[in-house]
Amino acid sequence: MLNTALLGAGRIAGVHATAISTNPGSRLVAVSDINTEAAGKLAAQYGAEARTTDAILADKSIDAVLIATSTDTHSDLIERATAAGKAVLCEKPVDLSLARAQACQKAVAHNGRPVMIGFNRRFDPNFSALKAALDKGEIGKPELLSITSFDPAPPPVAYIKVSGGLFRDMMIHDFDMANFLMGAAPVSVSAVGSSIVDPAIGQAGDVDTAVVTLTYSDGRIAVIKNSRRAVYGYDQRVELLGSEGLLQAQNMLENTVVKSTTAGVTGAKPTYFFLERYMPAYAAEWAAFVLAVNSGSTLPVTLDDGVAALAMAEAATQSARTGGPVTLASVLG
Amino acid sequence: MLNTALLGAGRIAGVHATAISTNPGSRLVAVSDINTEAAGKLAAQYGAEARTTDAILADKSIDAVLIATSTDTHSDLIERATAAGKAVLCEKPVDLSLARAQACQKAVAHNGRPVMIGFNRRFDPNFSALKAALDKGEIGKPELLSITSFDPAPPPVAYIKVSGGLFRDMMIHDFDMANFLMGAAPVSVSAVGSSIVDPAIGQAGDVDTAVVTLTYSDGRIAVIKNSRRAVYGYDQRVELLGSEGLLQAQNMLENTVVKSTTAGVTGAKPTYFFLERYMPAYAAEWAAFVLAVNSGSTLPVTLDDGVAALAMAEAATQSARTGGPVTLASVLG
Amino acid sequence: MLNTALLGAGRIAGVHATAISTNPGSRLVAVSDINTEAAGKLAAQYGAEARTTDAILADKSIDAVLIATSTDTHSDLIERATAAGKAVLCEKPVDLSLARAQACQKAVAHNGRPVMIGFNRRFDPNFSALKAALDKGEIGKPELLSITSFDPAPPPVAYIKVSGGLFRDMMIHDFDMANFLMGAAPVSVSAVGSSIVDPAIGQAGDVDTAVVTLTYSDGRIAVIKNSRRAVYGYDQRVELLGSEGLLQAQNMLENTVVKSTTAGVTGAKPTYFFLERYMPAYAAEWAAFVLAVNSGSTLPVTLDDGVAALAMAEAATQSARTGGPVTLASVLG
Amino acid sequence: MLNTALLGAGRIAGVHATAISTNPGSRLVAVSDINTEAAGKLAAQYGAEARTTDAILADKSIDAVLIATSTDTHSDLIERATAAGKAVLCEKPVDLSLARAQACQKAVAHNGRPVMIGFNRRFDPNFSALKAALDKGEIGKPELLSITSFDPAPPPVAYIKVSGGLFRDMMIHDFDMANFLMGAAPVSVSAVGSSIVDPAIGQAGDVDTAVVTLTYSDGRIAVIKNSRRAVYGYDQRVELLGSEGLLQAQNMLENTVVKSTTAGVTGAKPTYFFLERYMPAYAAEWAAFVLAVNSGSTLPVTLDDGVAALAMAEAATQSARTGGPVTLASVLG
Repeated sequence: MLNTALLGAGRIAGVHATAISTNPGSRLVAVSDINTEAAGKLAAQYGAEARTTDAILADKSIDAVLIATSTDTHSDLIERATAAGKAVLCEKPVDLSLARAQACQKAVAHNGRPVMIGFNRRFDPNFSALKAALDKGEIGKPELLSITSFDPAPPPVAYIKVSGGLFRDMMIHDFDMANFLMGAAPVSVSAVGSSIVDPAIGQAGDVDTAVVTLTYSDGRIAVIKNSRRAVYGYDQRVELLGSEGLLQAQNMLENTVVKSTTAGVTGAKPTYFFLERYMPAYAAEWAAFVLAVNSGSTLPVTLDDGVAALAMAEAATQSARTGGPVTLASVLG
Repeated sequence: MLNTALLGAGRIAGVHATAISTNPGSRLVAVSDINTEAAGKLAAQYGAEARTTDAILADKSIDAVLIATSTDTHSDLIERATAAGKAVLCEKPVDLSLARAQACQKAVAHNGRPVMIGFNRRFDPNFSALKAALDKGEIGKPELLSITSFDPAPPPVAYIKVSGGLFRDMMIHDFDMANFLMGAAPVSVSAVGSSIVDPAIGQAGDVDTAVVTLTYSDGRIAVIKNSRRAVYGYDQRVELLGSEGLLQAQNMLENTVVKSTTAGVTGAKPTYFFLERYMPAYAAEWAAFVLAVNSGSTLPVTLDDGVAALAMAEAATQSARTGGPVTLASVLG
Repeated sequence: MLNTALLGAGRIAGVHATAISTNPGSRLVAVSDINTEAAGKLAAQYGAEARTTDAILADKSIDAVLIATSTDTHSDLIERATAAGKAVLCEKPVDLSLARAQACQKAVAHNGRPVMIGFNRRFDPNFSALKAALDKGEIGKPELLSITSFDPAPPPVAYIKVSGGLFRDMMIHDFDMANFLMGAAPVSVSAVGSSIVDPAIGQAGDVDTAVVTLTYSDGRIAVIKNSRRAVYGYDQRVELLGSEGLLQAQNMLENTVVKSTTAGVTGAKPTYFFLERYMPAYAAEWAAFVLAVNSGSTLPVTLDDGVAALAMAEAATQSARTGGPVTLASVLG
Repeated sequence: MLNTALLGAGRIAGVHATAISTNPGSRLVAVSDINTEAAGKLAAQYGAEARTTDAILADKSIDAVLIATSTDTHSDLIERATAAGKAVLCEKPVDLSLARAQACQKAVAHNGRPVMIGFNRRFDPNFSALKAALDKGEIGKPELLSITSFDPAPPPVAYIKVSGGLFRDMMIHDFDMANFLMGAAPVSVSAVGSSIVDPAIGQAGDVDTAVVTLTYSDGRIAVIKNSRRAVYGYDQRVELLGSEGLLQAQNMLENTVVKSTTAGVTGAKPTYFFLERYMPAYAAEWAAFVLAVNSGSTLPVTLDDGVAALAMAEAATQSARTGGPVTLASVLG
């Protein structure tokens, strides 16, 4: 039984609290948040206690912490929690600064505790089924990967300003998906981006529409498309061409009803956003963490994976500014 | 090279004229119609001659006739054409009277000439692919067949009055499809029908919506659904449950475009009606006839098939009136 | 807060226990079962107590009971629980005997307590979305309903023998679905059935493959297809033709991955059986019950609905034996 | 009636011969080819004469020529045919040399005769329906275009060597599709490509897998993916994200049969290659040419369109070598 504390009590923390409570191998014992009222409310709902982060880290009976606080606190909390001997599952991204994330990576290596980064999409039943088919060789050798990842609507500009930009905030999921499926880091990253959804996003120095091309040492290619607005819902698709076929993971739909009228044949929209689409993925992610920590086996996503995706975001951000390809080696220093 | 004459110059005759002309193994040499202007026009379009039916039947150089005249002339023309030594492809149904069709069947047996009935749907690429998969054993032993066959809009009541009724005019195609796929005639036929699409159809003594259940000697079951109105287009689907799986032939769509908006995910409608849906089937039907006649091999659809489907229509008509099941044996006398 | 006891501790009771526990408006307080070990285990898992049914019914603090015991106990428990003032949600069918169910109906009318029958499929997100579209008039007036309902594999013959037969055990769900969607009871029921999946089922006096046609006073028609075996998974589809279009609720799939190879384009199978397909429906069913009981509003499914479906099963059973249509009036006596 | 001569008698010429012959507004009168036997055979099949190209161009009764010869003859033949007063439909590409194509463009402007380039995909029923929906504003303002275009199998290396390379030979269709749908030329072109399908293609100096990103002056983005090998068939899809929705044109399938077994749910493959997929497009392309020439209206695809696409291919070829983006302005000189 993994005694778990939750750092953070916001919306995504609520999702994690359910996963921790319903998993037979873990128990939610404490919740902390700078908003103590939110921490208290969430803790009460699941029969846990609201405590300070310091108290949680000092409590030897707590085995694991799930970090769902704001991004700027991730690196510090990972370092402190591992130093205190906890196993850690931390929401993505590790940090907005690649240098800071790399420092955290070194600290954790020193502490020797397991740290998993919350790339929840790896645990989506569709993407994991695609990966399983790939690993079984069902399409031969992968050659050309395409990831489509559109949000239903752009976030407030206030959020954009502190987000680190589309490549670090949004496309980082897709960079990790590319690493997950291609099984290797790319050699170079070429990005184009523009602000055509909302001019205010452009004025805030960010893009809302972007295409990134990744090239690999063996000639394989990946392309990622992002938009901050798909009015029909959360569009999350992957397709991978291989030497012996194509694998596609398509959208989940709200229901399976199809209506045929003089206007055409109409089905339901994709599930609206990440909470609807990825709810099963969050539960599966937590289950995988619990299983690995309790059994001492390898984590399915590591802090190294978090740093790798962040490096790709850094390269894409540079490429979108300069226009030319940026090698991963150049940003990893 | 099969020298062919076309009896009839209406709309469906035009479709057949194209098939005859473009098939490399046949040539359209003559067209007849009681409307001599229509015959002349159609003949001219394809470099053939307009003649009388008598002249056509007397011409020894004509090898085959395609009968696309009104239903009440089919039996006579089949008998006369085979007596004159011609190979015959005749539009369905053989006759509205089962007794008359059975008499024709005897006459043809005596003449010994090949007669094929135009059950075009057997040659539809989708239904023939389903049949091929079935014959390869891909779903094991067939158990439960469902045929959905909806017209886009009801015909004029004037047509209904001379049509022989929905079971003889419309569902006869589905009876043949059942025979084609099940490979046997049913033992009994149970029909329910009503007039809910257009009250005028009910006043004319016919139904516009009907469900027929067929039972087979080995316990298999088939169900056929007909409606005279599906506002979204011609709905022509088949599905067959077998011991090892399910085969479905779905509708052809006008195009493959899909639009996703806040209103849902919308695709194209089915192709509108039989000319759009079954154009490739008419060409394939003619090609199969030419191949069989030129090579002396067995016809893929026979006059016996035409009589069998008509007997099922007769049984369904009786069942819809009496309410109980009607055996095929009882109508075949 | 609805204090709830669960009568029965079998597999489906486990599903209900989860629904009761996670619904914010209800609390699981007690579980009873003739297998006291099973009751104890299930109760412990959800922090409830194992008690006898007598003790549960005598406890005034318990507001509602969910009856998930064997079918032969349903009527008695409904009567006793309502007499004890409890609100009741009872698994289908009410009883295998129509007469007994009708007696139960009278007793409950006398007791005046709310009784809901567990026709879970009404709460499936797909079927309820179809119903909502129908009620909004999106396909005009409904005319022809088709229900496909195939189990993945037949149950053991021992189960078949006590099941009441396919029409009462399996198709009863589809009878209720027809009532739900057509908004009226049929006038007559025509059934054909045979045992082609497993001869042992036939030897036990039951059928494993059946087609039932329902006719309505206004000319509408419904057809239901059942098979005990669809090797590809639980096949649960509905389609409804109306004057202005067609509504279809299609299967849920295990995932959205599609693989294209030289062998064709392959997607996932339907979810395997009712636990996979209808898990969200069970939760929504319980939520609807809690909402109605707590607010005193009308139940979405009533005991009358349970009796109506049972009467249709009785009529179908008779029709499958006699061959002809059986009126609902004749079985309702 | 457009008296038409066909220059070239290869495989694609045969497709054009059928389109010319069956179109009611045109007549095939002559065929030329350096292989006089092929010319004779094709001419005979359609009741036309085999002649020399000189004789055809000198014949004042011939209104139009369709150029389906090898690419290196296109520019010369366009110039000679227009100088002789003919209307011209020429297969793509105009030339492998952008400079030569631009010279041809000038010559034709001087001659003043209509020249259409055979970008057949604009006439595909799916892509033209997508374009029509876009023009009706059904997805608002287009923002992000994706084109997937995979051949079923790579051509012989001998062909690769004279093809001008993937960007000029294969992706040129997609460049024109981008121009067709975006309604503007891009500002810059970024290409990555590699040879992973067949090393012999790389040894011949070409790529077999490529991704090209196009950026537009107003911030819109397009991405094109090409592979020389999709073992499941010709993969030809377009999707366009707009401010109010998404439009997708999906593949045509060989048939609509779907098989569900324990192995999954399997449908037919995409139609095999361009002759299967684009046969209706070739007929529609010719019909549009005949309509425009006979009525004196604007051609739907012009020589300027041919030069524009070639310039994009030139830019992509340079970009794939240098690694950075290449502006269209820089290649247009």
